[in-house]
Amino acid sequence: MRLYQMQDSGNCYKPRLLAHLLGLKLELVDVDILKGESRTADFLAKNLNGRTPTLELDDGQFLAESDAMLFYLAQGTSFWPDDTLARAQVLQWMFFEQYSHEPYIAVARFWNVIAPECPPSMQSRFPEWHQKGYAALDVMEKHLNGKHYFVGDTYTIADIALYAYTHKAEDGDFDLGSYPNIRNWLARIAAHPKHITMEDRNI
Amino acid sequence: MRLYQMQDSGNCYKPRLLAHLLGLKLELVDVDILKGESRTADFLAKNLNGRTPTLELDDGQFLAESDAMLFYLAQGTSFWPDDTLARAQVLQWMFFEQYSHEPYIAVARFWNVIAPECPPSMQSRFPEWHQKGYAALDVMEKHLNGKHYFVGDTYTIADIALYAYTHKAEDGDFDLGSYPNIRNWLARIAAHPKHITMEDRNI
Repeated sequence: MRLYQMQDSGNCYKPRLLAHLLGLKLELVDVDILKGESRTADFLAKNLNGRTPTLELDDGQFLAESDAMLFYLAQGTSFWPDDTLARAQVLQWMFFEQYSHEPYIAVARFWNVIAPECPPSMQSRFPEWHQKGYAALDVMEKHLNGKHYFVGDTYTIADIALYAYTHKAEDGDFDLGSYPNIRNWLARIAAHPKHITMEDRNI
Repeated sequence: MRLYQMQDSGNCYKPRLLAHLLGLKLELVDVDILKGESRTADFLAKNLNGRTPTLELDDGQFLAESDAMLFYLAQGTSFWPDDTLARAQVLQWMFFEQYSHEPYIAVARFWNVIAPECPPSMQSRFPEWHQKGYAALDVMEKHLNGKHYFVGDTYTIADIALYAYTHKAEDGDFDLGSYPNIRNWLARIAAHPKHITMEDRNI
């Protein structure tokens, strides 16, 4: 399988991390979204929405959306639970991540460290991103109380989806000092013997 | 099952519509988010994120996120396909809806018709919502070319997720005049013999 990706994107890190945990090989093809490489006619033929990551399957079909890739790769593994309600809860946290978490925590990081020549219209949004991003962290902190992982107390793709940008939240000037449950959970994820970092390309 | 909901929310309409298509009964409990009813201690005990819809299962457990509810209710029915890649594609469109569609098309509608006393900071965002909302409609229009439904040419929960706010896009001053594939698809969904409208409470 081939992953069209940006190395420092949390969304692109998600399928890389899961693939490594599962011992799957992914060929990495770097796409520089800052240079418009995800908006060329060639790329839009792979993904109409012009986004990374985009996964090319071995039969030449394409899959978009990082969390749909996690679902696809996790089938038949312990990262996707057996129970129907647990599966729905995994998806609940993945939709939470894309709707209530990523648009604030990842976006603040993007304009802070990936594209720091932030236009004034974006700079004015940092207070809103921090308010809503901290609200998402509050939800996570409360939920993790007494738990090792987000669903069923085993490592699932819900954890991978939320780990991707939470462990880089400080890049967006979020302070995790008052979130001990989150910090313990982040350390637990990073301690997995087959863990790789966002910077790692050796998959 | 009991659905904590707002009648005119597209996200709350999703599980109502699927439940009716499947002949499932849902007890509706109205929660007025404009009056802060989703932020009370009592409600936060049901859903830490303080959002509608929230689904209470018959055993007293709760499930959040409209698209996770669609997944849960659709198990074992034709609205959730059998094939793994088709399932991933259904989820791809559901994540697309929550990330690239709802934050613009639903939010423009919200400030236009649900809470029209829109603060100036929100009013200034309509051009961005329209630009990004039309980009989402462009993706849908291209994808639907030659197709009856979003995945595998059968009616799935991807269609329900996208129908919920697309069929109300005009409430946010989106013009669907130049989107014939979308208009035909909307008409196809509404023509299902067990279809109910967003206004219908008789489920």
